[in-house]
Amino acid sequence: MSCDFIALANRGIQGLQPYQPGKPIEELERELGLRNVVKLASNENPLGPPASALRAYRNAAEDLHLYPDAGGFELKACLSAGLAVSPAQITLGNGSNDILDLLARVFLDEHSSAVFSQYGFIVYPIATQAVGATAKVVPAKDWGHDLPAMAAAVDESTRLVFIANPNNPTGTCLGEEALRQFMAAVPERVVVVLDEAYAEYVGDDAYPDGVALLSDYPNLVVTRTFSKAFGLAGLRVGYAVSHPQIADLLNRVRAPFNVSVPAMAAAVAAYTDMAYLARSREVNEAGMAQFTKGLAELGLAFIPSAGNFITVQMPGAALPYYQALLHKGVIVRPIGVYGMPDHLRISIGLAEDNARCLTALKHVLAEGVGTA
Amino acid sequence: MSCDFIALANRGIQGLQPYQPGKPIEELERELGLRNVVKLASNENPLGPPASALRAYRNAAEDLHLYPDAGGFELKACLSAGLAVSPAQITLGNGSNDILDLLARVFLDEHSSAVFSQYGFIVYPIATQAVGATAKVVPAKDWGHDLPAMAAAVDESTRLVFIANPNNPTGTCLGEEALRQFMAAVPERVVVVLDEAYAEYVGDDAYPDGVALLSDYPNLVVTRTFSKAFGLAGLRVGYAVSHPQIADLLNRVRAPFNVSVPAMAAAVAAYTDMAYLARSREVNEAGMAQFTKGLAELGLAFIPSAGNFITVQMPGAALPYYQALLHKGVIVRPIGVYGMPDHLRISIGLAEDNARCLTALKHVLAEGVGTA
Repeated sequence: MSCDFIALANRGIQGLQPYQPGKPIEELERELGLRNVVKLASNENPLGPPASALRAYRNAAEDLHLYPDAGGFELKACLSAGLAVSPAQITLGNGSNDILDLLARVFLDEHSSAVFSQYGFIVYPIATQAVGATAKVVPAKDWGHDLPAMAAAVDESTRLVFIANPNNPTGTCLGEEALRQFMAAVPERVVVVLDEAYAEYVGDDAYPDGVALLSDYPNLVVTRTFSKAFGLAGLRVGYAVSHPQIADLLNRVRAPFNVSVPAMAAAVAAYTDMAYLARSREVNEAGMAQFTKGLAELGLAFIPSAGNFITVQMPGAALPYYQALLHKGVIVRPIGVYGMPDHLRISIGLAEDNARCLTALKHVLAEGVGTA
Repeated sequence: MSCDFIALANRGIQGLQPYQPGKPIEELERELGLRNVVKLASNENPLGPPASALRAYRNAAEDLHLYPDAGGFELKACLSAGLAVSPAQITLGNGSNDILDLLARVFLDEHSSAVFSQYGFIVYPIATQAVGATAKVVPAKDWGHDLPAMAAAVDESTRLVFIANPNNPTGTCLGEEALRQFMAAVPERVVVVLDEAYAEYVGDDAYPDGVALLSDYPNLVVTRTFSKAFGLAGLRVGYAVSHPQIADLLNRVRAPFNVSVPAMAAAVAAYTDMAYLARSREVNEAGMAQFTKGLAELGLAFIPSAGNFITVQMPGAALPYYQALLHKGVIVRPIGVYGMPDHLRISIGLAEDNARCLTALKHVLAEGVGTA
């Protein structure tokens, strides 16, 4: 008879529910025997990877037997030039998820707490729970962050605050003045993580550039990713920009080879590919207009979104609609795990995929889904 | 004036010295203005990546904008078939370094301890320190693991034992009987990690297959990597095989997209490329013979190695020899950080690179390096 190994794990991990990713296309095709499945579930870039990054990726092939440069010299030099910060302020991550985990591991423990918003990105509670820290979840306001309430929730035990701007899965966005007031209200010993995974999609001029705020707020950490607007989710590259001491701490815990050879090469190429970025924004803007018009025609309410996705309120529980859409070969994301059981999050795709999704929605609404 | 952020970090991290990787070729070339540098410092596969894996890598290019399959269905199916274990026993890592970190995060905390050997792989003390746990370092015996002493070092606080077989950086190897005796002596509540990063290189018939031991010892975790004999260090893929409960725990903490799209595709292809593996072993065996003969001719003592590297005792402090070799365009690995200041670790390369290294060694020995 063998031990109960679960009981041997750290307490936080015993209570940990792992992240539930979007259903892979192959899995749905295997399960339902479908073809031509459309996946609008993981906020991926529908343009495919940038051609510039693909060239760098192919050129990296001859070095796959060699360890990556642990210091990330070339990618840090490229980000440093683009962001006008020192390389010593940059931490490279295996996606920005890796960075969020590193922040929790450096600053949180079972005696401390992290503050974040209801409907905030799910990795915040997971990273907090994994180190056994306390999560202080602050009720949302209009589906977005209630920053004054979050500032008020900070107490002696608080070491980290997570803010997503724009927020996933709600698409809500904060302005510069609100962020500055928040930073002024929070003690400097509290590290504030501004997760800008969707930053490149925001069209609003009032949207604050987190990196530009760093000089005023040394306790701010800005995280970004190559997974969304740069079209490289499959390669896993993200980064943090912060005070050099915070970067030093993150780099101590970071696995030295956490970003692969092709990921760094492709990220360097994509980062300066302004044409791809512009096209990503255009396609997203057009698709967002297509969805807001189409959803309104279907009589469905949605949360206005600054990201590359839109979150839609279904007439009742969303899960049966999600299932019905799967059977029509359209994968979207149910977000019951976010406490939003009546909503579906839909990623913005290419025009024809968006149209297929809207048509499928129209049919499942007409056919009805029965009661859950 | 800004905060001392270092003081805000968890105690273990305040005392953490990050991993020091081997010097990248580009860095040496930049610094010394050299060309045609030979790097025998990071135990990389000198054959370059397998052609089979390169084909898979190129085919993965069209999916780089999509998130990896978080469940690793295909790679787990492939490993499961090859190892005759259930997919539920497998955890995929961003290199096996990732797995070692996950094990520390799941089972260790500031109240517990990990046991490992003097001269054990440096990631064991780093992963232990990063979670604030106590390291119980057991003196080595003939540069290898003293398993009876390690069993005796296990106490009430011990949650993990790390054993590398073969060990890096010493190349020493343990037999099956010694391992079985160790497992029998250690309580089942202690998780024993058998790090088999170099397993595929071992020629000795007495070398135990850790995965075959799992059915007898549910508290055993075997870790392996695609970075060495499979020639894919730049892609970052490793894995653990364990009791399903331990895999469940590791998978809770694992970042869901920790292994990239091309890494999984290339690993699937490489894993069944028996011709590449055979060639890797042949080249390593020939290079090992070349080094043992060449080092003996130079009058240098070395530790007999079961891996793809050989650790050499220099006449006095090794660092000046390392520096002198750098100036001759040969990068090897000083291992003072392992408490072996008089040794250099040399990776086995292709015949001509091995010859260049031996010639450079001959010259620096003849020229002398002064006193450090």
